[in-house]
Amino acid sequence: MSGARPTGRLHLGHLIGVLENWVRLSERAETFFEVADLHAFTTGFADPQAIRDARDEMVIDWLAAGIDPERSVVFLQSAVPQISELHTLLSMIVPVSWLQRVPTYKDQLEELGPEIATYGFLGYPLLQLCDIAAFAGDTVPVGRDQLSHLEFGREVVRRFNHLYGPTLIEPQPLLSAFPAVPGTDGRKMSKSLHNTIDIADDEATTTKKVRSYITDPLKVRRNDPGRPEICPVFALHHYSNAARVPEIREACAAGALGCVDCKSELAETLNAYLRPVRARRAAFDRSRVNAILEAGSERARRVAEGTMRAVRGAMRLGDA
Amino acid sequence: MSGARPTGRLHLGHLIGVLENWVRLSERAETFFEVADLHAFTTGFADPQAIRDARDEMVIDWLAAGIDPERSVVFLQSAVPQISELHTLLSMIVPVSWLQRVPTYKDQLEELGPEIATYGFLGYPLLQLCDIAAFAGDTVPVGRDQLSHLEFGREVVRRFNHLYGPTLIEPQPLLSAFPAVPGTDGRKMSKSLHNTIDIADDEATTTKKVRSYITDPLKVRRNDPGRPEICPVFALHHYSNAARVPEIREACAAGALGCVDCKSELAETLNAYLRPVRARRAAFDRSRVNAILEAGSERARRVAEGTMRAVRGAMRLGDA
Repeated sequence: MSGARPTGRLHLGHLIGVLENWVRLSERAETFFEVADLHAFTTGFADPQAIRDARDEMVIDWLAAGIDPERSVVFLQSAVPQISELHTLLSMIVPVSWLQRVPTYKDQLEELGPEIATYGFLGYPLLQLCDIAAFAGDTVPVGRDQLSHLEFGREVVRRFNHLYGPTLIEPQPLLSAFPAVPGTDGRKMSKSLHNTIDIADDEATTTKKVRSYITDPLKVRRNDPGRPEICPVFALHHYSNAARVPEIREACAAGALGCVDCKSELAETLNAYLRPVRARRAAFDRSRVNAILEAGSERARRVAEGTMRAVRGAMRLGDA
Repeated sequence: MSGARPTGRLHLGHLIGVLENWVRLSERAETFFEVADLHAFTTGFADPQAIRDARDEMVIDWLAAGIDPERSVVFLQSAVPQISELHTLLSMIVPVSWLQRVPTYKDQLEELGPEIATYGFLGYPLLQLCDIAAFAGDTVPVGRDQLSHLEFGREVVRRFNHLYGPTLIEPQPLLSAFPAVPGTDGRKMSKSLHNTIDIADDEATTTKKVRSYITDPLKVRRNDPGRPEICPVFALHHYSNAARVPEIREACAAGALGCVDCKSELAETLNAYLRPVRARRAAFDRSRVNAILEAGSERARRVAEGTMRAVRGAMRLGDA
C-alpha cells in the first residue's frame, strides 16, 4: 500500500525514487496505490480545483511509468468513504499528544505557517494509517523520514487491538532508498523549487534543462579536471547511463571530458530512458482516467467495507 | 435535529428537560433524533459494551416518552457513515485553535482528566456540527451551555461556504429552558451523581426516592414554617402537580403542611405523571429496537448521502 498527493505533474525524482519501486512491488505482491486527494487538502484546502486538476495528470504519469490498473488497485481516497469513517472512529482512541509528538508536525507548521494548523492537518498521520488499515495493508514502502508516521500508526493499531480485540494489522515499513535526484539547481528535485525535469516534458525541453545544470564551479575550461562526486550531472548519469559511469568519472577527473559534451550525453540518455514512459503518456486516452479511478475505487470500497464491518463489530457500533 | 449519548437509562430530568420538548417539536416539524454512540466514545471509549447496552434502554425511553419513529427519524450515529465522512472532510478547514477555544473543552478536560484528551474528544463540537449539517438541520434545541458549540458550528459552515460555495446551512439555536430538575440530594438530577428518579423505576422505588429528598433543614417539626423556594420537593411539584403549587407554597410557609405529607402527595402525582410513560415502556417489545434503528438509519443515510454528494461536489472530490 502506498499513495501520493495530487499536487501536479510528476518529475524524474518521482519516477526514479518512487514509481520504479511501485512497479517492481506490483509485480510480486497485491498492491494498492492511492490518489490521496484528502491529504492534499491538509495544505491545499484553499484551492480545491488545483487538487482536482492535478489528479488526472498524476494518474496518467503513474500509468505511463508502468503501473497496471488491472494488476494493482489504483483508487481515489475521497471515493472510498470508509477511510474517512475509520478516521473518525479511530480518533476516539488517539491521544492528541501522540499526534503533536509526530516530528513532521512541528517541522511542517514552522515551514508552512500557522494557517495550515487545521484539525485535519494535525490528524494527517492518523488518516495515513487509515489509508493503510482500511485495506489491511501489511507493508508500506517508506523513506527514513516517514518511519515516525508508521511507528505512530502501529501504536494506534496496538491500542485499538488492546481495547477492542485483535482486528487491525500493524503495518511494517519496507525501507526504500528513495535516491535524492538532483534538480537543475543542484538541490533535491522538487516541484516547489521549480528545478524539475518532468515526465511530461518534451525532449528539447529536457535537453535545455540538462544544459542549465550547474556543474563543478572549479572546472572552468574544458580541460580542467572536474570533481564528479559534487556534480549533479554526474549523479544523474547513474540513472540513465549506468554502464558509462566509471569511464565518465575517470574522464571528468582527468580533464578529458568537457561539461558540454557530458551534458549532451546525459540529455540523450535521459531522453532515451524517458522515451517509453513519454510514449505511453502521449498514447494514453485521457478520457479513461475517470473510468480507471472509478473501477479501482469500487474494488477499494469492497475491501475497505470488509475492514469496517470488522471495526464496527469490534467497537460494538453500527448494527453490531 | 437533536440527539443524546447512550449512557444509560433516562430519568425524570431527561423527560421534563428534553424529551417533552422533542415530542412537541416532532409534532410540528420534520425531526431527526440521533443515538450519538460515536459521541459516547469521546469519554467512554474504554467500555464499548456499556455504550452498546445503553443504546436499547435509551431508545425504549424515547419511544415511551412519545417519540414516534414513523413521524421522526430515529437513527444511530455510527450507522450513518456519511456523518463520519463529513467530519473528516470538514477537519481540513477547521483551525485547531477554534476547537481549543470552545469553552466546554478545557472545562471537561479539567473535570474528567487528561486520559480523555483524545483527537476525537478535541473534535467533539465538529462532529456535533456534522450530525446537524448531514441532514441540513436548520434548528437545534439547545440550552445556554451549548450555545458556544452551535456558534462554532456556524463559523465552520460560513468558512466552508466561503471556500467552496454555498452548500451547508447555518444551524440556528432554539433556546430551550431545560429546567434543572433537582435530584434526591438537592443537586441537579444526573446519572453520575446517583440522585435520579428513572423512567424505568417502579412506583414503590419512586415513592421511596421521593421520601429520601432533603427538604428545608430549618423545618424540623411538622408545624415549623418551611421555605418552599429552597426546597427540591416543592420544585418538583411544578412538573407533576402544577395546579396545587400556590396552595402548597402557602401551606408550607405557614407551617400547615408537613414534609411527610408533602412528599406523599408528590410521590403520588409523580407516579401518576410517569404512569403512561412507564406503561408504554413496559408494553414495548424490546426486539423491535433494532428494526426501528435500522429503518431510521436507512432514512438518515439517504438524506445524508444527498448532503455528501453536494459537499464532495463543492470540494471537487470523489467522482466530481
